Amino acid sequence: MTAQEASARIQNGDRRALARGASWIEAQSDAGHQLLRLLFPRTGSAKLIGITGPPGAGKSTLADQLAKTIRMRAQTVAILAVDPSSPFTQGAILGDRIRMQDHHADPGVFIRSMASRGKMGGLASATLEMALLLDAAGFDFVLIETVGVGQGEIEIARLADVTVLVLVPGMGDDVQAIKAGTMEIADVFAINKSDLPGAERLEDEIRMMQSLGGHDQRRDAAPLRRVVASQAQGVESLLEVIEQVFAQRSRESARVDAWQIRLREMAEERLTAALPEPTLNQHAVRIAAKMEDPYTAVDAILADLLK
Amino acid sequence: MTAQEASARIQNGDRRALARGASWIEAQSDAGHQLLRLLFPRTGSAKLIGITGPPGAGKSTLADQLAKTIRMRAQTVAILAVDPSSPFTQGAILGDRIRMQDHHADPGVFIRSMASRGKMGGLASATLEMALLLDAAGFDFVLIETVGVGQGEIEIARLADVTVLVLVPGMGDDVQAIKAGTMEIADVFAINKSDLPGAERLEDEIRMMQSLGGHDQRRDAAPLRRVVASQAQGVESLLEVIEQVFAQRSRESARVDAWQIRLREMAEERLTAALPEPTLNQHAVRIAAKMEDPYTAVDAILADLLK
Repeated sequence: MTAQEASARIQNGDRRALARGASWIEAQSDAGHQLLRLLFPRTGSAKLIGITGPPGAGKSTLADQLAKTIRMRAQTVAILAVDPSSPFTQGAILGDRIRMQDHHADPGVFIRSMASRGKMGGLASATLEMALLLDAAGFDFVLIETVGVGQGEIEIARLADVTVLVLVPGMGDDVQAIKAGTMEIADVFAINKSDLPGAERLEDEIRMMQSLGGHDQRRDAAPLRRVVASQAQGVESLLEVIEQVFAQRSRESARVDAWQIRLREMAEERLTAALPEPTLNQHAVRIAAKMEDPYTAVDAILADLLK
Repeated sequence: MTAQEASARIQNGDRRALARGASWIEAQSDAGHQLLRLLFPRTGSAKLIGITGPPGAGKSTLADQLAKTIRMRAQTVAILAVDPSSPFTQGAILGDRIRMQDHHADPGVFIRSMASRGKMGGLASATLEMALLLDAAGFDFVLIETVGVGQGEIEIARLADVTVLVLVPGMGDDVQAIKAGTMEIADVFAINKSDLPGAERLEDEIRMMQSLGGHDQRRDAAPLRRVVASQAQGVESLLEVIEQVFAQRSRESARVDAWQIRLREMAEERLTAALPEPTLNQHAVRIAAKMEDPYTAVDAILADLLK
C-alpha cells in the first residue's frame, strides 16, 4: 500500500488502512510522514482528550467507559493508549486489547497501544502524529491514555484539547508527589474508585491545592467529578464536564501555541541530527588535550553549520 | 573585577575571586564564559568525584567526611552541592553551609551550593562549568554532590571521573526504583548508615543486581564499601577505593567521550537558541489554519537556518 492509497482509504473509513498507517507512524517511517502530509488538511475536527494519572488509577477502565458513553451518543471514538514505561508493559498493553475486545466488532471504536521507543521526545512526537492520524480518519473523539505521571505526560497533555487527571483515594503522600508539575495539567479532575474510603479527603486535598494556587490562575479552577469507572457510575457526568471545558477553551489560540512549541521540537530534532559526530569527536580530542577550549570549539562547529 | 583579573587571582589561590567567578557561572553570564575560556588550559588535574543517591542517604555528611579525610592527607578539596529539586531546597542548601562551617577557616576546603535554575540541561552545563572552575583553581579533589536520583544525576555523573552511589538500608522497594538507569552510573557503591539493620540485605541486593547484569559488562563490578558517615567510620577505606577506581580508568578516552557528548549538548543549546520564535509563530498560525502541514513548515524553517 502506498501512502497515497492509504490516505484515500483512511478517509473512506477503511480500518485496515488506518492500522497500517498507525504502524508506519509508530515505526517513524517515511511512509508515515508522507501519509501525514497528505492527511494533515483533514485534521482539526476531533476532540483530543488526554486521560492521565498515576499507575493503578483505573485510566484504562475509565477510557473504556467514556468510549461506551460516546458510542451511545452515536459518535465515534479512538483510544490511543500510550505507555512510556518500557519493556515491562507489554503485558498491560495486551491486557488493554483483551479488555476492550467487546468493542471489537464496532467500527466506531478504534484502539491502538503505543509503547515507549527510547527517549521521551520521540514518544511525544509519535503520539501527536498518531492523534493527527486518528483525527484525520474522522473520529469525533480521540482519547489519549497515558500511564504514569511525569515529563512525558506533561508533553502529551499539551497535545490534548482537554486533559483529565485521574486520581484514586488512599494514595496518601502520593498526592503531594503528583502535585509538583502535574496538578497544573489537569483541565478536569476525575476521582475514580470514589466508592472507596478517602474519596472525600482526596477531593478536599485537591480543592485545597487549587485554592493555594496549584493551578493556572488565569483559568478557573478545574472542575472535579467522582466516578466508579468499573461500574460506569458518573461517567456521563464526566463526559459532560469534559465537553463543557472543551467548549470554553479558545481552541484556535491554544492550537497555535501547541504548534509553535511542537514546531520548535521538530526543528530541534532535525538540527540535532545535523550535528556531525566526526566533527564533534575531532574537537573533543583537541579539548581533552587542552589544545582548544570548548567554547571556541562550539563556535567553530556552529560556524560550519549555520548560515 | 574583569574576567582577566579574576582568572589571574583564581590561579593565585584567591578564594574571593573564586567565589565571584562561581557566581558568574551560576548566572550563566558572559564574564563567566570568558573566565572559563581563560582558565580552561589550567583544568585537568583535579579528581572529579560524583556523590549521588536518593534523598536521605546522607550524601552531604559523607562528602563532609571525605573532605576531612582528604585534608588529613594535606590535599585540597572543593565540594559542589548540586540540588536540582527546586525552590524548596533553599533550606537544605543553607543547612549545608551551616553544617560545613567547621571547615570555614581552612583555605584548603571550598564549598559551593548550586540550586536548579529551570531545565535540567542548564544545570548540568552549569555544574560542568563550576567543576572546571574549581579544577582550574587547583583543588586536588572536586566532590560533586547531587541530591536525588534522576536524569540530572545521570548527566552529572557523566562529568565525574568516579561516581559514588550512596544507598542506605531499609529503603525497601526503592532499590528497585533506583535500579533502572541509575545502578549503571555507580563506579563505587557506598552503603551509608551501615550500622542500621538491613545493611547486609542491601549489600546482597546490590550484588545480585550486579550479577544479573545491572552494570556495564565491559567493566568490573563496582566495588562496595560500608560506611557510617556520621561517625567517620569506613570513610578512609572508601576514599582508597575511589582512588583505586580512578587510577584504573582510562581517563583520557573517558574525557574525550564526555567532551564529545558535552559539545553536542552545548551546540544543541546554541542551535535551539538560533530558532527564531516569530518565524515559528508564523508557521504555527498557518498550520493551525490548515494552510500548511508541519513537515513542510519545518523544512522551510531549517532551509532558512542551515548552510
